[in-house]
Amino acid sequence: MIETPYLLFLGDAADPLAAKVAQGIKDWRPDASIGQFRMAGCNADMKLPDLTIAEAAAKGCKTLVVGVANRGGMISPAWISVLKEALAAGMDIASGLHNLLRDEPELVAAAEAAGRTLHDVRIPSVKYPIANGKKRTGKRLLAVGTDCSVGKMYTALAMEKEMSARGMKATFRATGQTGILITGGGVPLDAVIADFMAGSVEYLTPDNDPDHWDLIEGQGSLFHASYSGVTMALVHGGQPDALILCHEPTRAHMRGLPDYQLPSLEELRSVAETLARVVNPAVTTIGVSVNTAGFDEAKALDYLAETEKRLGLPAVDPFRQGAGRLVDALA
Amino acid sequence: MIETPYLLFLGDAADPLAAKVAQGIKDWRPDASIGQFRMAGCNADMKLPDLTIAEAAAKGCKTLVVGVANRGGMISPAWISVLKEALAAGMDIASGLHNLLRDEPELVAAAEAAGRTLHDVRIPSVKYPIANGKKRTGKRLLAVGTDCSVGKMYTALAMEKEMSARGMKATFRATGQTGILITGGGVPLDAVIADFMAGSVEYLTPDNDPDHWDLIEGQGSLFHASYSGVTMALVHGGQPDALILCHEPTRAHMRGLPDYQLPSLEELRSVAETLARVVNPAVTTIGVSVNTAGFDEAKALDYLAETEKRLGLPAVDPFRQGAGRLVDALA
Repeated sequence: MIETPYLLFLGDAADPLAAKVAQGIKDWRPDASIGQFRMAGCNADMKLPDLTIAEAAAKGCKTLVVGVANRGGMISPAWISVLKEALAAGMDIASGLHNLLRDEPELVAAAEAAGRTLHDVRIPSVKYPIANGKKRTGKRLLAVGTDCSVGKMYTALAMEKEMSARGMKATFRATGQTGILITGGGVPLDAVIADFMAGSVEYLTPDNDPDHWDLIEGQGSLFHASYSGVTMALVHGGQPDALILCHEPTRAHMRGLPDYQLPSLEELRSVAETLARVVNPAVTTIGVSVNTAGFDEAKALDYLAETEKRLGLPAVDPFRQGAGRLVDALA
Repeated sequence: MIETPYLLFLGDAADPLAAKVAQGIKDWRPDASIGQFRMAGCNADMKLPDLTIAEAAAKGCKTLVVGVANRGGMISPAWISVLKEALAAGMDIASGLHNLLRDEPELVAAAEAAGRTLHDVRIPSVKYPIANGKKRTGKRLLAVGTDCSVGKMYTALAMEKEMSARGMKATFRATGQTGILITGGGVPLDAVIADFMAGSVEYLTPDNDPDHWDLIEGQGSLFHASYSGVTMALVHGGQPDALILCHEPTRAHMRGLPDYQLPSLEELRSVAETLARVVNPAVTTIGVSVNTAGFDEAKALDYLAETEKRLGLPAVDPFRQGAGRLVDALA
């Protein structure tokens, strides 16, 4: 686990989108960060106090989180002196960049000298077991998508927030780099060795209270030719009791695959349920989450109403409408 | 690729089963090996000439293949001096053991001194791409199983042998350690990083002549909770035109999963075809391969006849009957 509270490092973010990891932490874990660190030319702002490294350390900050990505996932030379200062001040550093903290000799030396930890969340830090398929206690929900990047993480986080507000027992289980940085822990599933994928998901979602829900972040799609094996491991390692179908209705083709059309929600439901039944015969699909950002309000509501009628399931856009009806459907 | 001809190292194999990798090479690539090397206490025999390292080198042997496994996949200290002698004599060494050649400092030093290569086929030696899903030329067959270890590799190798005998263009494509050592190349799919699994299968089965068949070694099972993600990557990376269903009818439960029953062949066909259609709408199941080793001849033939009638597909045991009818079904 990555220790909180965080200082969000925005560096020299070219625009707000470059700081989307920091934005995710701010949005979903508003209490986790005590400030932000911006360098000259930074065009992102989390509306958190701007702190120097010394100020953040004095306030008890435990980890500087690299909340910014620049082209190619590089660790900019301009950042190094700030990161070294943070280590010297007693903070760990966490990053989800493609280029690893541990591959920067200056940072490795500084971390060693200060007795601090470099968290590269893009690669596993655990030796995961082979999945054993044993039935676990507690409940699990998995978000599955018609494609990659259709709102699976957002849906699970929105449900966790709603369930916590209602006093229900729920834990978002991160399976990707952004989710791990948001929550401080998880499994970077796309970087796990093939044989251990399902086992890593079992490890992530262990036995729990009978009324506790793990809300498992989905990855890829069962219909995505590049990443479907990763999704399959989530279905069989996750042992979901409940599935949520996620969709983005304006996409012209599968992400990164111009020759592939998205499946229908009906096809997704049929395939996901069939596969999930292998590990949990009682699995049910409880709702549909649609990212309607490409539609105006009227068109979005029409689309959701039509989808709800067609599938016989609650269909909501949790960004527009909140996740309340999806949580209701868990009961 | 691992260079041939091989010297098959049987070491101090406790029994013939311990030398099953060597047996596979002898059975499926009879021309690949010019001899065997046995140590005191060896209880396996490939019926090849027993050669010293010097004799093998003089006959032009290019690679010593560790064709034996002992408990825990260890590299026995007793082997080291022989392996060093082989390196000094100008041979490479290839091994599929869990413990890696490259983790033995004495072997690393000897290989470096001799300018030879240590092939650890258990781990990838290539940086595989992300799958792009693009349609490739040539034909591909994938063996899928109701469970792990039901004869998928055997079936594909038997078909390759039959097709070669008929003058058809066919290549067995290895996806596991034994297959890689048998054929000299392939992808150790269970050791590939999750994101690159399907890409590694595309890499293994590139564009080819329109009448050429890749016979892709299957792994795991779409119904095996531990390994189904690996199988999924084979289905979507392999873009099969033809599927063969593989089954072992006496198994009481899924291998390693006492709580899981095997699916029926009908369930396997339905799920495998549905998933394969995502990447190749024209995919068809062409036959069933049954490992009937647990039955006597009469019961085996009864079972095959019943299966053939029930599924409406040729059902054969290629070990008892040869793979001729499966090859016929490709036409």
